[in-house]
Amino acid sequence: MDSLRTDLKLTFAELGDELKKHLSDKGLPTEAIDHSSQCFNTNVSSGKLHRGLAVLYVGRELRTRPLDHENIKQLCILGWLVEILNTSYLIWDDMMDGSTTRRGQPCWYRQPAISMLAINDACQLKSTVFLFLKKYFYQHQAYNSFVELFLKAGFQTELGQLCDLVYCKKQNIDDFSTQKYSTMVELKSSYYGLYLPFVLVLEYWQLATPANTQQVRSLANAIGEYYQVHDDFIDVFRDPTTEVGTDIQENKCTWLINKALRRGNDEQRQKLQDSYGSNDIGLLKMVKDIFLELGLEQAYIEYEKSEQEKIEAMIAAIDEGDGLKREIFTAVFDRYKKDRFRKASNEFAPN
Amino acid sequence: MDSLRTDLKLTFAELGDELKKHLSDKGLPTEAIDHSSQCFNTNVSSGKLHRGLAVLYVGRELRTRPLDHENIKQLCILGWLVEILNTSYLIWDDMMDGSTTRRGQPCWYRQPAISMLAINDACQLKSTVFLFLKKYFYQHQAYNSFVELFLKAGFQTELGQLCDLVYCKKQNIDDFSTQKYSTMVELKSSYYGLYLPFVLVLEYWQLATPANTQQVRSLANAIGEYYQVHDDFIDVFRDPTTEVGTDIQENKCTWLINKALRRGNDEQRQKLQDSYGSNDIGLLKMVKDIFLELGLEQAYIEYEKSEQEKIEAMIAAIDEGDGLKREIFTAVFDRYKKDRFRKASNEFAPN
Repeated sequence: MDSLRTDLKLTFAELGDELKKHLSDKGLPTEAIDHSSQCFNTNVSSGKLHRGLAVLYVGRELRTRPLDHENIKQLCILGWLVEILNTSYLIWDDMMDGSTTRRGQPCWYRQPAISMLAINDACQLKSTVFLFLKKYFYQHQAYNSFVELFLKAGFQTELGQLCDLVYCKKQNIDDFSTQKYSTMVELKSSYYGLYLPFVLVLEYWQLATPANTQQVRSLANAIGEYYQVHDDFIDVFRDPTTEVGTDIQENKCTWLINKALRRGNDEQRQKLQDSYGSNDIGLLKMVKDIFLELGLEQAYIEYEKSEQEKIEAMIAAIDEGDGLKREIFTAVFDRYKKDRFRKASNEFAPN
Repeated sequence: MDSLRTDLKLTFAELGDELKKHLSDKGLPTEAIDHSSQCFNTNVSSGKLHRGLAVLYVGRELRTRPLDHENIKQLCILGWLVEILNTSYLIWDDMMDGSTTRRGQPCWYRQPAISMLAINDACQLKSTVFLFLKKYFYQHQAYNSFVELFLKAGFQTELGQLCDLVYCKKQNIDDFSTQKYSTMVELKSSYYGLYLPFVLVLEYWQLATPANTQQVRSLANAIGEYYQVHDDFIDVFRDPTTEVGTDIQENKCTWLINKALRRGNDEQRQKLQDSYGSNDIGLLKMVKDIFLELGLEQAYIEYEKSEQEKIEAMIAAIDEGDGLKREIFTAVFDRYKKDRFRKASNEFAPN
């Protein structure tokens, strides 16, 4: 694992240099180049790099021939492109959510010299994905597919964000449904967080057959939702010594509220309707009490168990005929399971 | 001209329907679809549509065979895609500039129900460009070129915006230069406002030879800068009964300040250094007085005359051998000249 991370870090420096060179060739003034570099260096590599590492790990495991230096570098770059895309959306999301910190540092837009310029910085980061694709993959057979995949990943993420924000505004939680929840999770995180890294690798090795793509999509959705449900659960039922979640106050369409609405009687539903999405401490407590009354802690434990079994069965049923490997899903799923208990984990895969 | 505008407007309705259908097929909730539709309808078609009309006009003039219904529709769509891209950047720019109105209406982000969600709305608009490209041009020989052109147009615009914002922050106007000014204008407006509409049409009719592309680029840069210089000029020397410009207070890198720095003596340069970029009324007056002392009004008249002659000579020298036509540049340049005196003009070309 450490060697994957080392490979990834080495490539990052090259991408940073390449960006500077490109901007300089365009005739941009030094201050603009420095600003872009600072944005790139500060924001892109500060996360856990799960997605970038996933591309590299999956890329190595699915290789169709011995890996050479060029393959490793290209897989690293694809990994970084996923991280760059992710970073641009995190910058925008922080602004839209009014967040204060990200990864223990003030959010990019919170830096006094940045502020609203962060909008343009994030646009530029996203454009950099396509700049690097052209620079490093223009000759690759999958170049057009890579471009399409990143464009689509962006659009899906925006639609997921839109759903999330539209729900937060609505007071009428009767409109929530598990169907809407699943759609939102797929759009908002499964696509670019799981599907994209896998499918980029399939395209890279020319393994993107309809069967492989479909299997990856099903598993990405299942693992993505499993993880999101966990996230929703700990937002409310987390260790009280850690940071407090705000999903209830923000009227978020979560697994918990959907479950509560399905399980509750008319009176409980009415109470939820009246209390959900409020900042009032009494109303917040009422929502949490109803969640407890409805046995959502136990419901989550059951969900987790059955979902885990379902995902493991899906993995076991994978058809490896077109070059997929069950073990990559097992590794990724294991990492997700681990991640539930150690949010700050630095590991990607069990090996 | 009216028929071009009618064709364009008809296609807009179809694009709006197509967007709704796509979001509905994705399983998005009604509120999210309504929100996206509202954003699309409110923002995209409210401008003067110069760029969209330019695509249609140039597309008609450069046709390599008789135009059929499908050609007209496709050219209209390409025109709208330029308008959609432009709209997304206007939404972001208004947020970064803290603007209050756009085209006589409150800026999109100023609407109470929108606010910071406008960031995501603009992202989504930009993604829609690629969605429509795929929907309507996937079979077109130039599909990949269209995608590259729009991606590059976005990136260039962001870099231009970055230059603009970086300069506004700097107090040391000694760093300004006409070279930096030209780079910024090309990035910020000539590329997507002039080069992109022309080159899309060249690609559409398979006329994008290196010679044609290079000629379009030179003229786009010349006309774009000619127009920007005019914009800078009227920001300061405008009819005092109309809205007052704020370039001086905002420390903008304009043609006027560059000219003044080149023409001024040490004392005048020092005064500009001390006064430019301030909100103080006395300092603002001092800057304007120095501009007058240095004869910038007359300098602009001379610039305008010589630049006009230069552009007309460039147009006269165009090589039509690969299918370009001088008259399209004359028409576009005439429209730009007219536009200087009638900012709210609804016309595009003289015919």
